Amino acid sequence: MFNILHRVGIKAPLAKVYEAIATPEGVAGWWTTDTTGGRKIGEMVVTKFYVDGKLLGGFDLKIADARPASRFVWEVVSGPPEWIGSKICFDLKQEDDYTIILFKHEGWKEPVEFMYHCSTKWAIFLLSLKSLVETGIGQPSPKDVRISNWH
Amino acid sequence: MFNILHRVGIKAPLAKVYEAIATPEGVAGWWTTDTTGGRKIGEMVVTKFYVDGKLLGGFDLKIADARPASRFVWEVVSGPPEWIGSKICFDLKQEDDYTIILFKHEGWKEPVEFMYHCSTKWAIFLLSLKSLVETGIGQPSPKDVRISNWH
Repeated sequence: MFNILHRVGIKAPLAKVYEAIATPEGVAGWWTTDTTGGRKIGEMVVTKFYVDGKLLGGFDLKIADARPASRFVWEVVSGPPEWIGSKICFDLKQEDDYTIILFKHEGWKEPVEFMYHCSTKWAIFLLSLKSLVETGIGQPSPKDVRISNWH
Repeated sequence: MFNILHRVGIKAPLAKVYEAIATPEGVAGWWTTDTTGGRKIGEMVVTKFYVDGKLLGGFDLKIADARPASRFVWEVVSGPPEWIGSKICFDLKQEDDYTIILFKHEGWKEPVEFMYHCSTKWAIFLLSLKSLVETGIGQPSPKDVRISNWH
């Protein structure tokens, strides 16, 4: 198995960062505006992505762990085949005046080209999350930074 | 062993992207302004990084492969212990009107927290490379985007 890793520090209280990750309203502010769903372990979060107003696809995520002081995890239930069964983990801790996110998208079966793409896009979205929490303005899809012909 | 992966597409001819990766003058425009060294296999490239004018550290890299149409590789000779012996590979190809970079920093012995950090920073620097080639303006260190308390 192969994993995508990232580390970002956000100048804000941990509870505020957690809210932005663990609620559909939060996620709509940094990942994709079309995010709906629940907040509790076992509940679903549904994300959809559009390009030029056309539905490109999305992910159905089951909340697998939700510990406000330290950790939030989605398990991917549906979406692109490479994502199904993988887990998206956010481990949180406080350091200096930063909340540190240790991000792991774990359980890729092969390091396919789509994994390379998703790794860079996750960096883009984590910086969007940082901007959202620090300034109130994120860059969720469809306003996310384009990085290539794959968007 | 563990690897950092990224994929970025640059709207420019492959030869122009290759120049920006494979020459010290190019690297100085997107990674760190203090980059010196050679261009041929076996030659060294020396990079130094500063924060607030103070030397933070750097990497001595040996050019391990240099194929203008497709591939460029550095082997890390000195720097932080986690980097020594690892390889930094840029595979290039043309797709649509983009030059695609498949980036791999391979050979991390453990997925330590510093690897999480470097993964996100590589995304930042690859976007700086994209900007340099497409617009003429990169954001090399010390003007790179800060992502956390670790810079």
